[in-house]
Amino acid sequence: MITLAVDCMGGDHGPAVTLAACAAFLTRNPQARLLLVGQPQALARLPAALDASRCTVVPATEVVAMDDPVEVALRRKRDSSMRVAIAQVKSGAAQVAVSAGNTGALMAIARYLLKTLDGIDRPAIASQMPNAKGTATTVLDLGANVDCSAEHLLQFALMGTSLVAASGKVAPTVGLLNIGEEVIKGNEVIKQAGVLLRRAAEHGDLNFYGNVEGNDLFKGTVDIVVCDGFVGNVVLKASEGLASMIGGFVREEFSRTWYSQLAAAVAWPVLSSFKNRVDHRRYNGAALLGLRGLVFKSHGSADAFAFEQALQRAFEAADKQLLQRVQERIAAAAPLALSVPE
Amino acid sequence: MITLAVDCMGGDHGPAVTLAACAAFLTRNPQARLLLVGQPQALARLPAALDASRCTVVPATEVVAMDDPVEVALRRKRDSSMRVAIAQVKSGAAQVAVSAGNTGALMAIARYLLKTLDGIDRPAIASQMPNAKGTATTVLDLGANVDCSAEHLLQFALMGTSLVAASGKVAPTVGLLNIGEEVIKGNEVIKQAGVLLRRAAEHGDLNFYGNVEGNDLFKGTVDIVVCDGFVGNVVLKASEGLASMIGGFVREEFSRTWYSQLAAAVAWPVLSSFKNRVDHRRYNGAALLGLRGLVFKSHGSADAFAFEQALQRAFEAADKQLLQRVQERIAAAAPLALSVPE
Repeated sequence: MITLAVDCMGGDHGPAVTLAACAAFLTRNPQARLLLVGQPQALARLPAALDASRCTVVPATEVVAMDDPVEVALRRKRDSSMRVAIAQVKSGAAQVAVSAGNTGALMAIARYLLKTLDGIDRPAIASQMPNAKGTATTVLDLGANVDCSAEHLLQFALMGTSLVAASGKVAPTVGLLNIGEEVIKGNEVIKQAGVLLRRAAEHGDLNFYGNVEGNDLFKGTVDIVVCDGFVGNVVLKASEGLASMIGGFVREEFSRTWYSQLAAAVAWPVLSSFKNRVDHRRYNGAALLGLRGLVFKSHGSADAFAFEQALQRAFEAADKQLLQRVQERIAAAAPLALSVPE
Repeated sequence: MITLAVDCMGGDHGPAVTLAACAAFLTRNPQARLLLVGQPQALARLPAALDASRCTVVPATEVVAMDDPVEVALRRKRDSSMRVAIAQVKSGAAQVAVSAGNTGALMAIARYLLKTLDGIDRPAIASQMPNAKGTATTVLDLGANVDCSAEHLLQFALMGTSLVAASGKVAPTVGLLNIGEEVIKGNEVIKQAGVLLRRAAEHGDLNFYGNVEGNDLFKGTVDIVVCDGFVGNVVLKASEGLASMIGGFVREEFSRTWYSQLAAAVAWPVLSSFKNRVDHRRYNGAALLGLRGLVFKSHGSADAFAFEQALQRAFEAADKQLLQRVQERIAAAAPLALSVPE
């Protein structure tokens, strides 16, 4: 049995979305239990579809707003649903916490309550992007760290490897995001990270492919792409923006004239199959890696389907003992990470 | 009359593409003349469609290959078509040079021959991306500079403003690419650049909007987005990769079964109108800004239609006296750019 602590108040829609997702999730996963964390009045009436025998409501009096500064979330709202959910992981009552709340607050509270693993300086946010091969590319960091050293990038590569390996992929390949494939490209941090990653690969800690470029994210050249949180965040958001623009163009073109509306009706099965393939909701659920406990982050605007994917990812990570895997890989590689090349 | 020096040998396809583009370009622009730079044997037989009265062949014995290291292009191939084309700008024989060759080599040769403008430390590469508003977002730097200081980002903003203003847009808005809209977001360089940009806006040198995020590139929130060359290059290539993946998915879905092929036939006019809208060839032609002469870069894989767009952009920049505009704006703002906030 795996127990998930769910911040039911987080995200743009709160319990309306999170509880519906919880109900669907429990139906699909007989081995899961849920701690539903939130304001008692908001959780007083649970959906009928929710298997009550596998749910426990854990009260929290406050809610972290999507625009609360980190300081407010961390210092003032000490009984927030986000914090109480993470506290369940710390106490051992749950194996993983899931929230659709404010990313900055979630990372700060998780770091404060759970602390980082030995050998990890900075936790990172890892998520999946679809690729042309029909698989997914795992990218980290997506915004937790604006400035990264070469050692941080190595740590991200090790954590990303554990994450993808936990999903069953043997020796997943790691690419270092750069502006060219050649070893001499990039700034000093990137070049030094390349040296560390090659050394880690020789040591058997990970499977380093080499430098990759922006387009490789979507080609599916490697399983894992490592970058600093500034670049990762910009690329993630730019990709969301571009996909949304293209989706808007498709809708506009197919509704422009009576003929295009007719064409849309004829092409409907094809268009929905296409839409399903690029449905970003399927990729929802980012892992906060490098902490002494598992925490997953859902997109704030997630609907029930998307939030359920985040729950599913969190469940699988806990089930495959992701925390222990990360810990072991970091420990095995720690002497490497500490010795910076001159 | 505006004279363009065209590196006819550059790009993946060489004269087959560049000469066809030149013919179409001259037909559309009666006020243009061309210096066709390349190996005499390759340019011995010009297409019949090319108006010979407005073309002069300028011989060059060598060609910079797409994978030539910068050192080879710069030091060994001193009579390359790329270099001779840029030399025409230096000598005043042409007002602008256009090449589809290797970006690194083009920037290095342009910088070596033309030198940078007073007040500019680093030239930058600026190009357009389509946005949801149906206009274009100008982004710089796209890869010339992997590490940038706050002053460099201010210089990019000033040059980008001149570029977009030359196309007729009054007081174009400038956004600073960041991982959040709040002033406190980002690393030290970004925060300091924000201070410089606000100060330049108060001084009337540009129209600063504030921080923008990755998705704003495609929303069309601002006219100009400023970022370092590492981030710009990664975002540009990731966007190309994503667009190409989505295009591939559309093709796959519409050819999967007999029904989807039928739907494709019915939807053909709609699909081609959509394709035209996201056609990246229309946005071909990047400006190398900050040099004492105008140089434009075409995508290496450009076809004749795409290369013609790059010629058109180069022609318009020369026609609108972009060089002088950049020079004047930088000179007016120079005292600002030199005083770094503490």
